[in-house]
Amino acid sequence: MRIALDAMGGDHGPEQTVKGAVEFLREVADRDVGVILVGDRAALETEAARHNYDSDRLEIKHASQLVSLDERPSRIVKTKPDSSLVRAVQLVKEGTAQGIVSAGSTGALLSASLFLLDRIPGVRRPAICTWFPSAKGGFLLCDVGANVNVRATDLVQFAIMARAYCQHQLNHPNPRIGLVNIGTEASKGNEVTVKAYQLLSVQVDNFVGNIEARDLFEGHADVVVCDGFVGNILLKFTEGLVQHLYGWARQTVRRHWTSQLALPLLRPALVDLTQQLDYAETGGSPLLGLNGVSIVSHGLSSAKAIKNALKTAHRCVTEELISSITKGITDHHNRFEEHNAVKES
Amino acid sequence: MRIALDAMGGDHGPEQTVKGAVEFLREVADRDVGVILVGDRAALETEAARHNYDSDRLEIKHASQLVSLDERPSRIVKTKPDSSLVRAVQLVKEGTAQGIVSAGSTGALLSASLFLLDRIPGVRRPAICTWFPSAKGGFLLCDVGANVNVRATDLVQFAIMARAYCQHQLNHPNPRIGLVNIGTEASKGNEVTVKAYQLLSVQVDNFVGNIEARDLFEGHADVVVCDGFVGNILLKFTEGLVQHLYGWARQTVRRHWTSQLALPLLRPALVDLTQQLDYAETGGSPLLGLNGVSIVSHGLSSAKAIKNALKTAHRCVTEELISSITKGITDHHNRFEEHNAVKES
Repeated sequence: MRIALDAMGGDHGPEQTVKGAVEFLREVADRDVGVILVGDRAALETEAARHNYDSDRLEIKHASQLVSLDERPSRIVKTKPDSSLVRAVQLVKEGTAQGIVSAGSTGALLSASLFLLDRIPGVRRPAICTWFPSAKGGFLLCDVGANVNVRATDLVQFAIMARAYCQHQLNHPNPRIGLVNIGTEASKGNEVTVKAYQLLSVQVDNFVGNIEARDLFEGHADVVVCDGFVGNILLKFTEGLVQHLYGWARQTVRRHWTSQLALPLLRPALVDLTQQLDYAETGGSPLLGLNGVSIVSHGLSSAKAIKNALKTAHRCVTEELISSITKGITDHHNRFEEHNAVKES
Repeated sequence: MRIALDAMGGDHGPEQTVKGAVEFLREVADRDVGVILVGDRAALETEAARHNYDSDRLEIKHASQLVSLDERPSRIVKTKPDSSLVRAVQLVKEGTAQGIVSAGSTGALLSASLFLLDRIPGVRRPAICTWFPSAKGGFLLCDVGANVNVRATDLVQFAIMARAYCQHQLNHPNPRIGLVNIGTEASKGNEVTVKAYQLLSVQVDNFVGNIEARDLFEGHADVVVCDGFVGNILLKFTEGLVQHLYGWARQTVRRHWTSQLALPLLRPALVDLTQQLDYAETGGSPLLGLNGVSIVSHGLSSAKAIKNALKTAHRCVTEELISSITKGITDHHNRFEEHNAVKES
């Protein structure tokens, strides 16, 4: 198995991506597993030379172009055909690699993956699925930004796809599925969520109902679905609020000299808390619904984040996630297609 | 001036509402300002007897019914005509009171106010406006739950109404207006926000563009608009996440005995931080767009929260908020009516 890594993607570039790939290979004993670094050959060779690694397992493929964050994602395959991102996806399309990891533009990765790998038959919209850690076990949120306008039936597909991911990746045999909403009653929410509640109740196993935003961290569900507009807001808001509260608390502590004395004592707890909240631990977010394993890693990805994203990709391949999602979507389609056709019309 | 207080509303009932009213009167020197406590006469007289107050300024009006939280808000005027909430709103309709404060069901207050006070002419949808404190000055978010399905033109009206509130209540001569969105570019977002961006740019003074959820606390805007679905999620999510992080941090600190030693030293900073984050300080949230001053206070309102909500109501009346909003809406209507009619069709 080979995993293609867009080695030029992310804010820290080849230094961290190459290091992450080397660390991944060190942790995964199976000598049949390798990484293909895609990007500027000279730069990647220089970085690779800093490390000890098994050269049979780390290969470099040259790509001459870079994808910048201000590029229009939808045309990326046309405008940057020789970019590290597009070339890496192409390796999966050709069958040279079995999965792709990128810390570059999420939009560009989605667009290139959609164009080159296509969707799983029956999937209307691919979705991005992200892990939220919490003191009560955490949860997967899907979609966090691929689809800003959705139908109720899309939310059902997000549930089916994220459930498969949760089962394989997190060893949950029967994940509880929830719907982000502004009240727990079936009648609450906007047009889409009211309709989605009805569909999820009938069509999806272990649907536990609406989850209010206040309770998202309370551990009532393992997979929570929402449209990509709301999901992206929740994702970004969490980052912003955590940082803001942290800064605010530090500022406040500094205003009180007695409290300031507490800081050195707090260190072990702060290190611990920071680690629990660390996005680098989560191992990237899969783009679900594509006919191939495609994982996006945070733009600020460190070597550790890249390593964990590669591990996620590796596990998606060995666990045959794509077949599972395909089966879930097909089964659902066969059972409820007629029902949905009536509902949507 | 009289302010009607739904003295039975809120989880803590008459004990806190009556105390809050007494404290309000103590802080507002103007002897022409009074409060009408609406609710069960016997209960309110018992509570009032615990305090010293100027009896010319505190009056009791009996109401025999209670509004419970599981009641259908939309029919509240019909089903509970003699409830403390409905009677209190009625006092404003009759002109006996100039504003109403309730810590009861937000939906019921909105419905009763809409039915009895009506909208300001030209306003399509009233909206709830809430203050978010932050280390960088805080901001008003509108709407936080009155409207789950909105049009782009509604967001423009929310901006006009919340701007007037910000000017009068917070002494901002020219508040910066932002739009909650998932990217800063004009093209980002769902159908409604893309259209709203265009309208806000042309039709609203000092529009500073999209505000990403990550940056909401960064102080880029004084008033931020969104639909009530997203706004309610942001409001509830903030409550949930702050509580969750606080509990998580405490748990983590307890796991490290050295860090545990820091807790007594941290006390002054924690007291300070808790106060800054305290919803009781914010003084309730106005329902904007109604033809009368109607303020909803948090369901868990303490006497302090009630006192601050009464101060908000008092200020809305003296500052003639309703006239300001009416003027803002009329001016906008005259200038852009034709433009909007074309856009919506």
